Amino acid sequence: MSKVFTQASVSLDGFIAGPGHSGFDKLFAWCRAGDVETPSEDPERLIYRTNAATAAYLREMMEGTGALVVGRTLYDMTNGWDGKHPGGLPVFVVTHRAPDEPIETETPFTFVTDGIESAIEQARMVAGDKAVGVGPGSTVGQAITAGLLDEIRLDLVPLILGAGTPMLTGISDQLALSNPEIIAGQGVTHLIYSC
Amino acid sequence: MSKVFTQASVSLDGFIAGPGHSGFDKLFAWCRAGDVETPSEDPERLIYRTNAATAAYLREMMEGTGALVVGRTLYDMTNGWDGKHPGGLPVFVVTHRAPDEPIETETPFTFVTDGIESAIEQARMVAGDKAVGVGPGSTVGQAITAGLLDEIRLDLVPLILGAGTPMLTGISDQLALSNPEIIAGQGVTHLIYSC
Repeated sequence: MSKVFTQASVSLDGFIAGPGHSGFDKLFAWCRAGDVETPSEDPERLIYRTNAATAAYLREMMEGTGALVVGRTLYDMTNGWDGKHPGGLPVFVVTHRAPDEPIETETPFTFVTDGIESAIEQARMVAGDKAVGVGPGSTVGQAITAGLLDEIRLDLVPLILGAGTPMLTGISDQLALSNPEIIAGQGVTHLIYSC
Repeated sequence: MSKVFTQASVSLDGFIAGPGHSGFDKLFAWCRAGDVETPSEDPERLIYRTNAATAAYLREMMEGTGALVVGRTLYDMTNGWDGKHPGGLPVFVVTHRAPDEPIETETPFTFVTDGIESAIEQARMVAGDKAVGVGPGSTVGQAITAGLLDEIRLDLVPLILGAGTPMLTGISDQLALSNPEIIAGQGVTHLIYSC
């Protein structure tokens, strides 16, 4: 069965965004901090330029991921990525209520109204042997609480934001993980934890 | 001039304690997760048992630190470490008001009522060539805001606490740091960032 993981660029103090959605330039500076090019699935929008270690990490993750599960907040905040998610993958949106009028999109969006377990199960069906990416946002905490997350990929950025959006919310149980695999990037340390 | 650093065991979600001061057993499990012994300054209370890499990290830090700066909250919470701080070092306590009656202690405690800059300056005088350790707690944010912190040592623990006491508080400016030195421990990843 395909692996379920989450990945996030996180500041040293545990935030994925600064106050008022600030700080993204600094949080994602590592995406353009080297000279090895890795085209994203939407290269007109983004070509990563990193050191070689980060490039290998990104390539493995892009090639190995088959579907995504996101929350409705993120979907709305990005205006549904204007119909085209940059990951170039089917996206399952966990929501209380699907939009009234389906819009025409390049990305296949599926609105799942019966919870995170169902969304992950549907994403796994589509992903086949590949992995399912979850989050960011409250879907990550929901997946952890449901015992469905296999891996946490932290892209730890040498940055203090002071306040903002926490990486993880809605988790009531303390959870001990394994030692991480460590990949030293430029302006980022990739830490891969098995749950 | 001596280096000023802070060091903290931190969960993946950025907490130095769980709700109601819970989770310390898990946060500090790395101190007893290996078989290389490193006596603390108070070996009756604590002998670290870690892998070799962590032992070297601890030894260098213990040998290289000459004084500590802490906040009054921590001092009160620990009842002044019952008169004997486990670091075996002079301790400068940042406070609004010194205790009315000085108590007899093994550790030389100095109560500093004119702010973090003064406390760090006094600690540096005592530390000589050695480093000054600051924190945990609000003193760390004060030192960062005052531009007086040279180094952040994160002992990143593969643990999700969900909620609790944040590692850093009271920081209003976003601060970008260098790539870290990375030391892979057992049940902990030591990350040393220069400010």
